[in-house]
Amino acid sequence: MLLKKMQTELGPQERLDDLLIGGLKIIQNEAEFCFSLDAVLLAHFASVKKHSRVLDLGTGTGVIPLLLAAQAMQIDALELNPVMADLAARNVELNALQDKINVRKGDLCDIREIYPPEFFDLVVSNPPYRPLQHGMVNDLDGVARARHEITATLADVVRAARYVLKFRSRFAMVHLPERLGEIIIAMHENKIEPKRLCFVHSRLDKAPTMVLIEGIVGANPGGLQVEPPILVHKEDGSYTDAIRKYFYEEDDNG
Amino acid sequence: MLLKKMQTELGPQERLDDLLIGGLKIIQNEAEFCFSLDAVLLAHFASVKKHSRVLDLGTGTGVIPLLLAAQAMQIDALELNPVMADLAARNVELNALQDKINVRKGDLCDIREIYPPEFFDLVVSNPPYRPLQHGMVNDLDGVARARHEITATLADVVRAARYVLKFRSRFAMVHLPERLGEIIIAMHENKIEPKRLCFVHSRLDKAPTMVLIEGIVGANPGGLQVEPPILVHKEDGSYTDAIRKYFYEEDDNG
Repeated sequence: MLLKKMQTELGPQERLDDLLIGGLKIIQNEAEFCFSLDAVLLAHFASVKKHSRVLDLGTGTGVIPLLLAAQAMQIDALELNPVMADLAARNVELNALQDKINVRKGDLCDIREIYPPEFFDLVVSNPPYRPLQHGMVNDLDGVARARHEITATLADVVRAARYVLKFRSRFAMVHLPERLGEIIIAMHENKIEPKRLCFVHSRLDKAPTMVLIEGIVGANPGGLQVEPPILVHKEDGSYTDAIRKYFYEEDDNG
Repeated sequence: MLLKKMQTELGPQERLDDLLIGGLKIIQNEAEFCFSLDAVLLAHFASVKKHSRVLDLGTGTGVIPLLLAAQAMQIDALELNPVMADLAARNVELNALQDKINVRKGDLCDIREIYPPEFFDLVVSNPPYRPLQHGMVNDLDGVARARHEITATLADVVRAARYVLKFRSRFAMVHLPERLGEIIIAMHENKIEPKRLCFVHSRLDKAPTMVLIEGIVGANPGGLQVEPPILVHKEDGSYTDAIRKYFYEEDDNG
């Protein structure tokens, strides 16, 4: 019923998608960044517990909070882009998850003015992947902002995570493999030691296309668990069973 | 003929092995650490050039210098354990490579007294993999010294490499995946930025067993190339073609 009502309220560039997980639905705006497999992989990789208070930095459409809602106690979602923050809030309503997910429009660079310190058990982020290149500052549409570090750098994201995370709690991120060195250094400089790492491959005889990493605040260095790689596609181009089960096997939770 | 002469001079716990590469032979001592696939993988991973002056830190039997001899201009090899340093020198003679490989007995922690600064184009190392555990200091045989950080830590190895490497030159290492975070941090703290990374798997559906990493002195952070994983074994337990070609396809160079 709620769904029906929302469908009539879609804006001109908006579309309603079925998340195929636990009956979840999501509105996306085709002029803005639409969520991709990266967010789904991160939601499954992150160590979420029943009592976890979770923050998603740069939530976009709010897809990660939607995917984690069944597992976590409470989820906050921060988004700078007002179009996306509005969309994320509407997606929470669409799925009747207002009691669990709280979306805020705000800048993660100002995190000290938004959330109390050492408040969360888990911070997740699917941040912009690419450093800002010289001459790119004029290209300020929503898609560019979601893909490039125009509004926040990798170091900004990790620093924000450190501020809001409790001692011994976790930070999980999805990013490009080519930036792994910078990620590990930024985490270490913020006293977050990497403890889990997983590469995502389109084909196993090719270089990985994504990396999933999770660190623990205040842990000792060492003991990084590199997990078996995740293979996304079969030879015929279809999703592997490992990926398909992310979409279909969780309907019981809905 | 040289080979024949050497065979008669093998000590009681020594054995002569065929490296299966370019006609190379190697003496190993069964009471000490014998070289393993790790060294072979590192020798193939490292970016060696014809004019390269190479240093192998903790050379053991000298297997890496032997494997690199056909590609590099000059190779120095440092080894603390006198039994192994002697073995490495004899392996160089056995293969008539005295003009190209120079073995020294010495401690990489004293590198400033052994080599001039910024002298090498490439440093390679297959160092002890495991941190020293409490109560292990009494276990001081050669195998333990080769496996555990009794005589040099990861940080010692990277610091030594930095001292002898020219600006913009390379450091390549093989190590355990669980120590990747520490490796990247130690490299960064010594102004060596990781630029190539490759995981080695016994099976691709399992966690990697080794990691190969190469960094460049004085480079900017970022642009880490994560290469396709190396698979060691086929399902029947035999070596994959990728590994077999390391042993057999190079006979032409001998």
